[in-house]
Amino acid sequence: MEPIAYTEYLTMQTEKRYDIIDITDIVERVRAAAKLRDGYVLVSTMHITSSIFVNDHEPGLWADILTWVEGLAPAGRDYRHHETGEDNGDAHLKRMLLGHQVLVPVTKAGLDLGPWERVHYGEFDGQRPKRILFKALGLST
Amino acid sequence: MEPIAYTEYLTMQTEKRYDIIDITDIVERVRAAAKLRDGYVLVSTMHITSSIFVNDHEPGLWADILTWVEGLAPAGRDYRHHETGEDNGDAHLKRMLLGHQVLVPVTKAGLDLGPWERVHYGEFDGQRPKRILFKALGLST
Amino acid sequence: MEPIAYTEYLTMQTEKRYDIIDITDIVERVRAAAKLRDGYVLVSTMHITSSIFVNDHEPGLWADILTWVEGLAPAGRDYRHHETGEDNGDAHLKRMLLGHQVLVPVTKAGLDLGPWERVHYGEFDGQRPKRILFKALGLST
Repeated sequence: MEPIAYTEYLTMQTEKRYDIIDITDIVERVRAAAKLRDGYVLVSTMHITSSIFVNDHEPGLWADILTWVEGLAPAGRDYRHHETGEDNGDAHLKRMLLGHQVLVPVTKAGLDLGPWERVHYGEFDGQRPKRILFKALGLST
Repeated sequence: MEPIAYTEYLTMQTEKRYDIIDITDIVERVRAAAKLRDGYVLVSTMHITSSIFVNDHEPGLWADILTWVEGLAPAGRDYRHHETGEDNGDAHLKRMLLGHQVLVPVTKAGLDLGPWERVHYGEFDGQRPKRILFKALGLST
Repeated sequence: MEPIAYTEYLTMQTEKRYDIIDITDIVERVRAAAKLRDGYVLVSTMHITSSIFVNDHEPGLWADILTWVEGLAPAGRDYRHHETGEDNGDAHLKRMLLGHQVLVPVTKAGLDLGPWERVHYGEFDGQRPKRILFKALGLST
């Protein structure tokens, strides 16, 4: 039982521009590799047009979430950001609604999540490689 | 002064379906039980239809927040999630707006919050038992 | 390489009521002062009408963000919170949309951010002094 820090990176590439993917099993794999017994695993997207969030593993809900963020931060608007040549202003806003990082608690060498809590990656400007950072901090097994 | 991790769980059951409750005193009680002098206390709801957020202890503002999230993520819509038999699609979205966890800084054996910062539990599908996780990490007194 | 915790406070005062300011260089300065090699730096506003968030350093996008939060949480509405004599109900809601804190990962004695990730302070009720808390936790150099 000693203090440890451990880092991994994962590259994601979604087939669709907008997508939601459950990455909870990857978080647990990182936790195990870190030998973290008690502490946190930070899961943080390194790109500014994607999200990390916790919600239900339920494809109907994933569709609701994509519809909802499109309603509140629509694509195709005349965003000032597009003056730079980009066309993804909506993705920068959508990622704010859902958040860009989650701190997963770890207890007794396991992810300490509620029964329906699952960690998701939300992509709003996909079809290209993007990185997620995992950083474990706490006490080792 | 040595590295510590400490975990507690609290079960909440609100009388109303939608509610906001100040839980700052509970965070401090957990901090004291953890003997945490310097570090963080993670406060994270273990359910996917409730929130943890920091804002003012002011009932008028709490009413504003409930009105606001209802406007942006209304109940009673024909959410895809309801095809599973659930009726709480709005709660899954409302909890995203306000966030599901907060990291409370601890300095000199006290919560290091600004004068109006208070930690709140936001419930959007209540009237049943739900758990909140508190996990302290840092250096002990 | 030993466990450390380190805290700093910064007072901000914006010229405008609504503003967005890149504070990434300050986070790195705090990290260096903390001698943090591996861990996290929590960046958290101590006021409930401002935000900390990660997004692109791009003034067009900053304008988009301010327009967007004004659309979703408008000023000038008849908020219940205003019965207390305050006029900043919108600011309390806007800060929820963007979040009030960020955990910046630190690896090999540097901020472990993606190429476009920058930490920003979002002000929605400015023109007066406000504090930001920085708390490093992890293993020292």
